[in-house]
Formats: sequence, structure tokens, C-alpha cells
Amino acid sequence: MIILGVDPGLTRCGVGVVEAGASRRLSFIHVDVVRSDPHESQDLRLLKIYRGLCTKLDEFIPDAVSIERVFAQANRNTVLGTAQAAGVAMLAAAQRGIPVALHTPTEAKLAITGNGQAQKIQVERMVTRILNLNTMPTPADAADALALAICHALRPSGALQGGEREQHLTQAQRQWAEATRKANRGGNMLHRGM
Amino acid sequence: MIILGVDPGLTRCGVGVVEAGASRRLSFIHVDVVRSDPHESQDLRLLKIYRGLCTKLDEFIPDAVSIERVFAQANRNTVLGTAQAAGVAMLAAAQRGIPVALHTPTEAKLAITGNGQAQKIQVERMVTRILNLNTMPTPADAADALALAICHALRPSGALQGGEREQHLTQAQRQWAEATRKANRGGNMLHRGM
Repeated sequence: MIILGVDPGLTRCGVGVVEAGASRRLSFIHVDVVRSDPHESQDLRLLKIYRGLCTKLDEFIPDAVSIERVFAQANRNTVLGTAQAAGVAMLAAAQRGIPVALHTPTEAKLAITGNGQAQKIQVERMVTRILNLNTMPTPADAADALALAICHALRPSGALQGGEREQHLTQAQRQWAEATRKANRGGNMLHRGM
Repeated sequence: MIILGVDPGLTRCGVGVVEAGASRRLSFIHVDVVRSDPHESQDLRLLKIYRGLCTKLDEFIPDAVSIERVFAQANRNTVLGTAQAAGVAMLAAAQRGIPVALHTPTEAKLAITGNGQAQKIQVERMVTRILNLNTMPTPADAADALALAICHALRPSGALQGGEREQHLTQAQRQWAEATRKANRGGNMLHRGM
């Protein structure tokens, strides 16, 4: 299963691609950043990000796209541009019939480090280790995009329905399932604060 | 010159089309609302809105698209969906090489009623009068979309560069030019509070 992660942004939009094999073994496939020029108009910047993401989707033909959830209370200076970049990423995936999953930064941190409050550097180190990379992926947007792809690959999907399967989860997976449940309780979280 | 106005929304996205003839005489062409089902996933809803807007752009082939600016401090429950609907509208226009203008609600109210703080009903009545309609366009999103198209048609573009031309403007146009200058002073307002 190939998963393409997107760390949405209007200036820099991170893209990370991983393959999840048997026993959830993960392999690195690709990492890149799609950029747009802050001096261009908003519509042309969105077009640039959209085209860049379409090219990646058509190159790697992922089975799923994992995008960071954007929250309304995030940095006011960039939140709308970030939401719009996430929007065109969702659109590009939907046009190709590829399922889209939204994951919070907390979910990604929990999935990768076992700690939803982990520092950026801890997440980057674990991404590097999980994917057997020689060096940490740069820039940060690229590492975050890989983290989102890994997060989706490792998601404890059975646990979300509760019940018996959850007993077999690790502590980190249980914490993550709980964080996901909390997020989902709010309905469509893209419209709500955490 | 044909102008297509967009009142962005994820559940209901208003579309209004007007033609600006000689002496800025305005004629009504079309009004409609593109909808998406709140029970569908975010990506499929954006795809629905995008496709609906593409159909309108290809039907009316406007010379300009006028979209309401979204502000980060707007209603938290809907602001991100609204921003994303505006984003896919910008994208659809940019893909067709159609220039995009963003106008604030204050600019639209000023252009249409001469009062940037006008009530919704006053704007609707003036839209009806300006376009010689027999009845007020409904629902509200439709009227707002027409207001955005009219606002763009009537914009005091010369006044924005200041100087002599501004002396010939009406008081309402001067107020509007001032409101536009204030908005533009913030740079790319899509990223900022007012």
C-alpha cells in the first residue's frame, strides 16, 4: 500500500511517500516540497501548489492520501492559506478517486514517537529511523509529510471501533486511538477547534 | 464585460453573473447556488463545489471572477470550509486564465448602497434595483454573489492610484476607495485580520 502524506502550506507544501508492506514494514519512496512564490497572486499560488500535487499523485499513484488537519485557531497569519493548500490537496485526490484521511499533529506524533506532545526533532529522528534513512529529511515540511504518511500507515484502524481488538494495542497505540476518538467526537474537525 | 461573483461556502456557494456594458450599465445574466452535502467527506464536498463552479465558468466564460475575501477571525465553525471553497473557486478561475479579484463585504456594501455597514436587506434591495429584477434574488448566498459581481463592475479602479481622478468620484466611491486602500495596506488580506 502506497501512502502519500501532505504537510499543507501555500509557500511550502511538503509531500512524502512511503510504502507499507507486510507486518506494516515501511519503506521510503519519495520526499519533496512543492513551492509557490509569495509575490504571486493567491489564485496563481494555489494553481502552482495544485499542479505540483497532481504531478506527485500521478507519479506515485498512492492508495491513500494523508493530510494534516488544519484548525481554525492555528496561526492567524497563515491559517487560511494552509487550509486552502489542504483544500486543493483534497480536491486533487478526490478527482482521482483516492481516499483522503486527515490526521492531527498529535496523532502523527503519537503514532511515530508514542508521545503526542513530542518535540519536532524527536519526530524527525524517529521518521529517519523508521524509514532507515541515512540522514534526516529536510526541510521540516518534508519530514512532516513523511510523518503524516507513516501515521496513516500505522493507524490502529481496528481500535477505532473499540472493543476487543484494542486490548492488543501497545500503550502508544491506545493513546493514539483515544486522541483520534476525541478528534472525531467533534464531528468534522476541519470546522472546529480542538 | 462579463463578471462572475462567488459567495464562497462549502454547503452553499453562491454564483452570480452580470454583464457590465457602456457607462457601467449592468445587466443580470444568471444566479444560482452550488451545494454540497454536509454528510459527505470534506474532499468529496470540495470536489462537488469545484465541479459546480467549473461548469458555471465554462457556461458563462466571464472576463473576471469576483470572490468574497475570507478573514481568519470570521465564524470559527465555518471559516476553514469557506476559505477552502474560495480556494477551489480561485483555482478553477486560474486554470482558465480568468483574472480573480477578492472583495471584502464592506467594499461590496459600499459599492452597492454607498454604506459599508449597510444591512443585508438594503444590499438585496439595491441589487434588485440595479439589475432591474422583479423580485429579490434568493437565497441570500445568491444575492451576495450578485453583489460581489456588481461590486467588481463598479469598482473605482482609477481611484486606487489616488490623485486627480479621485476628485470626480461620488462620496460613496471615495469611501469605497478608502476601504479598499485600507484592505490592501495589509498586503495579502487573505492571510490577515482586518
